[in-house]
Amino acid sequence: MSAVSLQNNLIAIRNNKIFELFVIGVIIFSALIIGAKTYHISPGWMSLFEALDLGVTLFFLVEIIIRMVAERGLKAFFTKAWNVFDFVIVVASLVPVDESEMALLGRLLRIFRVLRLVSIIPELRVMLNAFLKAIPRMGYVSLLMFIIFYIYAAIGSTLFAQINPVLWENISISLLTLFRVATFEDWTDVMYETMAVFPFSWFYYLSFIFVVAFVFLNMMIGIVLEVMQREHEEYDRALGQGEAGEVHWIREHSEAMEKRLERMEEMLRSIESKS
Amino acid sequence: MSAVSLQNNLIAIRNNKIFELFVIGVIIFSALIIGAKTYHISPGWMSLFEALDLGVTLFFLVEIIIRMVAERGLKAFFTKAWNVFDFVIVVASLVPVDESEMALLGRLLRIFRVLRLVSIIPELRVMLNAFLKAIPRMGYVSLLMFIIFYIYAAIGSTLFAQINPVLWENISISLLTLFRVATFEDWTDVMYETMAVFPFSWFYYLSFIFVVAFVFLNMMIGIVLEVMQREHEEYDRALGQGEAGEVHWIREHSEAMEKRLERMEEMLRSIESKS
Amino acid sequence: MSAVSLQNNLIAIRNNKIFELFVIGVIIFSALIIGAKTYHISPGWMSLFEALDLGVTLFFLVEIIIRMVAERGLKAFFTKAWNVFDFVIVVASLVPVDESEMALLGRLLRIFRVLRLVSIIPELRVMLNAFLKAIPRMGYVSLLMFIIFYIYAAIGSTLFAQINPVLWENISISLLTLFRVATFEDWTDVMYETMAVFPFSWFYYLSFIFVVAFVFLNMMIGIVLEVMQREHEEYDRALGQGEAGEVHWIREHSEAMEKRLERMEEMLRSIESKS
Amino acid sequence: MSAVSLQNNLIAIRNNKIFELFVIGVIIFSALIIGAKTYHISPGWMSLFEALDLGVTLFFLVEIIIRMVAERGLKAFFTKAWNVFDFVIVVASLVPVDESEMALLGRLLRIFRVLRLVSIIPELRVMLNAFLKAIPRMGYVSLLMFIIFYIYAAIGSTLFAQINPVLWENISISLLTLFRVATFEDWTDVMYETMAVFPFSWFYYLSFIFVVAFVFLNMMIGIVLEVMQREHEEYDRALGQGEAGEVHWIREHSEAMEKRLERMEEMLRSIESKS
Repeated sequence: MSAVSLQNNLIAIRNNKIFELFVIGVIIFSALIIGAKTYHISPGWMSLFEALDLGVTLFFLVEIIIRMVAERGLKAFFTKAWNVFDFVIVVASLVPVDESEMALLGRLLRIFRVLRLVSIIPELRVMLNAFLKAIPRMGYVSLLMFIIFYIYAAIGSTLFAQINPVLWENISISLLTLFRVATFEDWTDVMYETMAVFPFSWFYYLSFIFVVAFVFLNMMIGIVLEVMQREHEEYDRALGQGEAGEVHWIREHSEAMEKRLERMEEMLRSIESKS
Repeated sequence: MSAVSLQNNLIAIRNNKIFELFVIGVIIFSALIIGAKTYHISPGWMSLFEALDLGVTLFFLVEIIIRMVAERGLKAFFTKAWNVFDFVIVVASLVPVDESEMALLGRLLRIFRVLRLVSIIPELRVMLNAFLKAIPRMGYVSLLMFIIFYIYAAIGSTLFAQINPVLWENISISLLTLFRVATFEDWTDVMYETMAVFPFSWFYYLSFIFVVAFVFLNMMIGIVLEVMQREHEEYDRALGQGEAGEVHWIREHSEAMEKRLERMEEMLRSIESKS
Repeated sequence: MSAVSLQNNLIAIRNNKIFELFVIGVIIFSALIIGAKTYHISPGWMSLFEALDLGVTLFFLVEIIIRMVAERGLKAFFTKAWNVFDFVIVVASLVPVDESEMALLGRLLRIFRVLRLVSIIPELRVMLNAFLKAIPRMGYVSLLMFIIFYIYAAIGSTLFAQINPVLWENISISLLTLFRVATFEDWTDVMYETMAVFPFSWFYYLSFIFVVAFVFLNMMIGIVLEVMQREHEEYDRALGQGEAGEVHWIREHSEAMEKRLERMEEMLRSIESKS
Repeated sequence: MSAVSLQNNLIAIRNNKIFELFVIGVIIFSALIIGAKTYHISPGWMSLFEALDLGVTLFFLVEIIIRMVAERGLKAFFTKAWNVFDFVIVVASLVPVDESEMALLGRLLRIFRVLRLVSIIPELRVMLNAFLKAIPRMGYVSLLMFIIFYIYAAIGSTLFAQINPVLWENISISLLTLFRVATFEDWTDVMYETMAVFPFSWFYYLSFIFVVAFVFLNMMIGIVLEVMQREHEEYDRALGQGEAGEVHWIREHSEAMEKRLERMEEMLRSIESKS
């Protein structure tokens, strides 16, 4: 069998709907094995699971090699971000599990195989792409939020370190304490403790909660809204439905009308000159 | 009395506004009985409530038979989803209450009779339909969220099972613990415990909270927004009011204008050729 | 001085900008007195505050009488909802404070005088009107939410009453416990308690949290969005700015263009017939 | 070197991209020093950090003087809000650190130097400007919220002061307790305590939570939405993309079409009169 016909066969396998469903099945099966291994099970079952796990690892290796060969070349394969994503996951799960040290790391890395569900189901891929579009905007809001946290943490550890070193000893511990306050987790206990020494420290906590709640909510809602609306409009425009679709229709037809009017004016001018 | 005139009578009863209000009254009365039975009451009152409950059950049975006969046939009756909904609730509440085992199940099933309020009040039905439209989209976001939970739970039970088996023994218990963390319920206690062994495990919790909060909020707000806006636009377009209504008006009149311009150009051409 | 000129004087007083600011000042002063009286103060100050409070009560009485006389008649006065609102608050604060029983009620009723700030500041009045518009829609969502709470409370008190009567004894106590769960307040303590008897009761809590969070968030965001967007559009349309304003401009000019085209077609027809 | 050429040199320095990146670097370095000083460090390191801190202070002083001279005059410098912002931060960090009393204040003031990141990174400046636009609207919602808090606090301290003075002694402490209830922090403990005396006080807490959650969410989402949408539309209109851009295009071309039609009607009229 020539190399070309082999490649054609592999392309046929890769594009086969049943093969794709089988891969999804293997990913879910792999996730179930990972889950099952967290239970207390007899050594017999455990070695069975280990064997199945090895089988899954090999299957993923074969599957990614099929897709690499089916592609027009390694360069073409790696230009698609999702292929790189799959490749990293498959390679990471090849870390040996024999030694006790590496065993834990190997187990942890193989957990991420569940993420391949995201790369193989188109709807999840579209959703994740929408998230990724929101990242640049999110970066600046996160930076602003971190600046606010940092300033409050520096003030907190400067003022409150002597009161309770467990919560305010240095700036990293203070940052964690402030994150706790931001999630409203027993934040009054933290406040009452410092209010015993600084009676006006309630202002520190209340202002922090207000600022963070505002920035955080703005970040979340603002980004989601922007991404959603833009997609919503583009979708409507592409299908010519909804308000955005109708506006697009009007715009295009306005252009046609304009051209027609230009022709008509030209004719009128010629009629006027003749008469 | 012929079968046809009986059916006509039943249709008249079913469409009667007063009969409908009476059914709503019986549903509310049934809900009050269910509520009253949760109080410590004397056996005398209890048997009265039991009798009333039986009466309500029989009334619902009669009412659904009326609606079945009033419909053009059983097939027509069961094609409406809300009829199936009512039928299941009425049949489920027929489970006998005599035996001690079944008594509890019977009582539980009869609680769902309150849901018939949703199927009988049109505004609630419209609202629930809007929710149902959001389900397909919600399915994929829930799947993404479950994948995130599953990966974190697998990591958590792999690393923390020895530290606190009550919270991290296996993947199901870990999933419950993570749901607790996602609701911010005493999540710092969970974190401080694992930080004593793994000082960097705060990253596990903080990254989890960020990802889940983002996906969850996106799910909620995104879906609500999409469904709301689409309904809002359709409503406006149907009534010809608001921005969407005006755009629709412009689109329709643009079409008329285009046709008129076409006619006018034709006339101009004929005038030009004549002159 | 004639009755008419007295009325004109009162109208002049009522519409006076300085008088309005003075009323706002008195309301804020009244709020401060109410606040001051919650502190432990010497009897001397207390009697001073009581005297000032009486003064404020009399001032409000005089002010509302001025506005009643300044209006064209009592009927005209009471047709405005905000006047009824003010009248009820002023009359309620006339409840005597002498007897020990009534004293507490009187003090409580006079607290609501702070609400007069809402009726006197136009921006707050506009905001409250926007809230009131959202109420009918909110009613049905609240009803749906109450049905969900009621069903869960009935199931809860049926199954868990024996486990912890303090939390689940009857349907009212169960409703309160479920509200607590809905706010995530120590809800895992409630869950772990029942899971000791019913290991699968986590499904009861998780499904409840999902349904309530979804309905509640939908209620809040949906209603706010609807009211906000409609106001936003109407505001833009009225000012002719923004997208809604431009669409409105296009619509109106489209109508003018259509009429012009009609005239032009008529002329063309007449020219065609002549040539 | 003449004064003019000095100024030109300073303008060149100020506008230099590398100088700007260097300033950002110094700000981040300054933030790291502030963070490092919260750790327990040896006196040697401490005096090094103090020296570095002094260096940063002097650098900021020099940098702001460069910018003041590079500007056309002090008046021109201070008309830009961000310059005032930077100037206040730099001057505040000049507070001496020698005396024990002032040392703490000096350290606290120098923490705010991190805020200079906001004024120097354009994207953060744009974001903060968007927040500032939302402030007037936010002011009225905050006022409404404060009125609600004040009324509930007055009722709370009137009724519950005897039950638990720690939580309800006077109106300021009651306001803090209500803020705690609004964040759901152990609010049921507060409620169960007062319910032992006033069994119906659950209504006080539930109504408060409903009203505050509604006003708060409305405040946050409403303001964010308004600011976002307006910016979104303006951005689209300026770039001529999206629905708002297309509507703007249609509007402008409609004006051109109208003028053309006017000309054409005029021509038609002249043709009609001639023929």
